[in-house]
Amino acid sequence: MNADLLIHSAAQLLTLVGPHPRRGEAMSDLGLIEDGAVAVHEGRILAVGPTDEIRSEVVARQEIDASGLMVMPGFVDPHTHAVWAGDRADEFEMRLRGATYMEIMAAGGGIMSTVRATRAASIEELITQSRRRLDTMLAHGTTTAEVKTGYGLDVENELKQLRAIRALDQAHPMTLVPTFLGAHAVPAEYKGHADEYVDLVVEEMLPAVKSQIADAQSPIFCDVFCDEGAFTLEQSRRVLEAAGTLGLGLKIHADEFKPLGGTRLAVELGAISADHLVCTPAEEIELLGRAETIAVALPGTPFGLAHHEYTPARAIISAGGALALATDLNPGTCWCESMPFIIALACRYMKLTPAEAIVAATVNAACAVGLAHQVGSLEAGKLADIVILDLPGYQHLPYRFGTNPVRTVIKAGRRVVG
Amino acid sequence: MNADLLIHSAAQLLTLVGPHPRRGEAMSDLGLIEDGAVAVHEGRILAVGPTDEIRSEVVARQEIDASGLMVMPGFVDPHTHAVWAGDRADEFEMRLRGATYMEIMAAGGGIMSTVRATRAASIEELITQSRRRLDTMLAHGTTTAEVKTGYGLDVENELKQLRAIRALDQAHPMTLVPTFLGAHAVPAEYKGHADEYVDLVVEEMLPAVKSQIADAQSPIFCDVFCDEGAFTLEQSRRVLEAAGTLGLGLKIHADEFKPLGGTRLAVELGAISADHLVCTPAEEIELLGRAETIAVALPGTPFGLAHHEYTPARAIISAGGALALATDLNPGTCWCESMPFIIALACRYMKLTPAEAIVAATVNAACAVGLAHQVGSLEAGKLADIVILDLPGYQHLPYRFGTNPVRTVIKAGRRVVG
Repeated sequence: MNADLLIHSAAQLLTLVGPHPRRGEAMSDLGLIEDGAVAVHEGRILAVGPTDEIRSEVVARQEIDASGLMVMPGFVDPHTHAVWAGDRADEFEMRLRGATYMEIMAAGGGIMSTVRATRAASIEELITQSRRRLDTMLAHGTTTAEVKTGYGLDVENELKQLRAIRALDQAHPMTLVPTFLGAHAVPAEYKGHADEYVDLVVEEMLPAVKSQIADAQSPIFCDVFCDEGAFTLEQSRRVLEAAGTLGLGLKIHADEFKPLGGTRLAVELGAISADHLVCTPAEEIELLGRAETIAVALPGTPFGLAHHEYTPARAIISAGGALALATDLNPGTCWCESMPFIIALACRYMKLTPAEAIVAATVNAACAVGLAHQVGSLEAGKLADIVILDLPGYQHLPYRFGTNPVRTVIKAGRRVVG
Repeated sequence: MNADLLIHSAAQLLTLVGPHPRRGEAMSDLGLIEDGAVAVHEGRILAVGPTDEIRSEVVARQEIDASGLMVMPGFVDPHTHAVWAGDRADEFEMRLRGATYMEIMAAGGGIMSTVRATRAASIEELITQSRRRLDTMLAHGTTTAEVKTGYGLDVENELKQLRAIRALDQAHPMTLVPTFLGAHAVPAEYKGHADEYVDLVVEEMLPAVKSQIADAQSPIFCDVFCDEGAFTLEQSRRVLEAAGTLGLGLKIHADEFKPLGGTRLAVELGAISADHLVCTPAEEIELLGRAETIAVALPGTPFGLAHHEYTPARAIISAGGALALATDLNPGTCWCESMPFIIALACRYMKLTPAEAIVAATVNAACAVGLAHQVGSLEAGKLADIVILDLPGYQHLPYRFGTNPVRTVIKAGRRVVG
C-alpha cells in the first residue's frame, strides 16, 4: 500500500484500539505495541502495528523516526470553555487573599465579569483571543476539543459565541465540538427571576441554536450548570428535555459543589456525559456504572481553586463506569490548556493509574463528545490525529509534570506542531 | 550610552531592585515599571527604567519590542538534584497503587535505584541525560540553578557528579552552583553503619571536594539530609561543621518529614539556607525571622507525592523570614523543571501572593545561592539574565498553570531561547 507518511520505530505506540468506551478494568488497556509504526494516507490512519510488519506492507512518501519516543492518538478534551474575552487575574489574587465568592461578585468579579467582556467583544476579537488558547492546546497535543458557550447569556451573544466556535473549527487545525450552555448562569438582568431566564433559554435560545447553527454533519450538544447558585434540578430538566426534543445531544455540569441529583437526571435522559462529579452520592455513582453516560472528571478545577476534593474516580471505575478527563479550560477557575498536566493531576489526586488516565484522555474522551468513530484511537480509517511525545514510555506522562512532553502533533495527516 | 540590546515597551517590567533578601512585607515589592525598558551591554544590564527615559539615554544595536508582554529577571532555582542517570517511572506507578516506601525499597526502588544508575553511568552519559533537563529549565526561564550531588555516595562517584555539574556549567548557557550532598542517604554498603558513612563523608569526601573542585572563583555549598531515615541532627552537625571549617557554604534539608531540629542547627551555624521546612515547629520559624538563613520552600515535592502538607510560608513571612522557592527537581518525588509551575503551586497551596512568589523565585532565590550580587534583579551591573513572558501582567504567572509562558530567554546578554 502507498502511504503519505510512516511514523516508525516508536519505543511505545499506544493504539488505544479496543472496546469503547472503556469501563472498569478495561480502562487499563492501552493497546500498546513496542517498536510500533503507524501509516497515514489522505488524512486517515492506514495501518498500525509492529514496525517490521507495517514496513512490509506500506511504501511511504515520508517517514518520521520515532526511536526512543512515544506515539499515541491526539488528546481529546471533552469539556472546555475555551472561547471567552478578557481575563480574571485580579479575581485570582483576591481569592488567594481569602475573598469569598460573594465578595468577588460584589467587586464585579466572577462569571459575570467574563460575560460583560464577552458581550462587549466583537466576534473577531473573541476569535483572536481564543485562537491563542487553541494554539496552546494544540501544542500540548489536543487535536479535538469540545467548546461551550455560556458567556453570552442572551440570544445574540450566545449565537455570537457559537459562531466563533464554528469559525475557529474551520480556521484552526483542531476539531471543535460546539456545546450550547445558555444555562451557565443567571445573567444580572434576570437576577431573582431564574425561571424567566430558563424560559428565554428554552423558548428563544434553543430554537435559534437549532435553526441557525446545528446541521446534520456535526454533533452539537446542550449543557446546563445544575448546582447551588446556578440552576435547580427542575430548571436543568426543562433545558435538557427541550434540547433533547430538538435533537441536540445532552451534557450536564453536575455535583461540582452540591449534589442536586444532576447525575441521576443525566442517566435518566441518556445524556452523553455528566461532568465534574466531585460530590456525587454513592447511589448515583452506581447508576453511572450501568449507564451509557460518560463521567467526565475535571481535576484542573479543584486544583485551580486549591480545593482538596476531587472526583471519586476509583469509585466510578469500580462501579463499572466509563471515565473521561478534560481541562475545563476557563477564565475563572482553571486557565490550563494542557491535557498532559490534567493527566498528572488525575494520577496524583484521583488515584488513576497512568494507563487509566491516558484512556480517559483519548478514547473515552472521544466517546464523551460523540466522535469515537473518528478520533481517540489509532485505528485504520480514523482521522490521523497523532502526537509524538519526547518520553520513553507512557508512565512518564504523569510521572513528570508542569512541562510539555509533546514534540510533534499531526492533525488529519498534516504536521501542525514540531 | 551605547547598548548591544534594548528591550522596550514592556507592559510590565519587573526590576526586583530593592533590599535583598526581601523579608516580611517587603516580599511584595516587585519594582514594577509600566512601559518599561532594559538596556544590555557586554552581557550585563546597562540601564533600567521607563521606555521614554531609557530611549533618551541609550542607542542600541538591536531592539526587542515587548509591547503587551512582561519582562523580568531570569528565575533562580536554588534547590535541584538535576544531575542524575535513569528514571523511576515504575516506582511512581507503584506508589500510585498504594505501595509503601518500604515496599518500594524492597523492590529495588527509592533513592538507591538512582544511586545505582548514576554510579553505573559514565560522566558523559550523566552529562547527556542531565543536559536535556537543563534545556527544559532554561526554556521555562531559569537562568541560574543550584545542583546537588548525592547520587554517588562514594568518593569517586560524588566527585564524578560534581565534575558533571562543573562541565555543564561551562557547556550550558545556565549558571550552575554546585552543592556537595554526600550525606543525602546512607548507601546500601553502609546499612546499619551510618556513623561510619559520616566518617567517610567528613574525612574523605569533603577534603577531596575541597581540594579537587572548590576554587575561589565560584561558591560551592555543602548540604545534608537531616530527617528520619536519613541523617540525625548530630550526624548533620558533624557534616556541616566539617564543611564550614573547610570554607564551604552550608545548606540543609530540614523538617521535610519529621522535625529533628535541623532549622535551629542551620541558624546556629549560619547556613545560607534551610530547605523543605514542611513540619518546622513554631519556635524554629521564629528563629528564621531573626536569622540570615533563607527559608527555601519546595512545593513541587508534596505535589509530586500527592501529600497535603506544604511549607507554612505565611507563618515564615509573618515572622519576618526571607522565603525562596525552588523546584527540587529530582527523579523520585518531583520531576518538574518549571519555576512558573512552582509559582502557581506556591500561590495556591502556600497562599503566597503572586508578587511574593515572584520575589521568592528571583531575588530571594539568588540570595539562597550566594549570587545576589550577580543575578535575581534587573539592576545596572548585574548579569543580563532576562526573560520575556507572553503574559500581560505578573498576576497571570500563577493564574494560568501547567503551560509555559516564557517566550524569550536572554542569558548574560545572549538570546538563548525564542
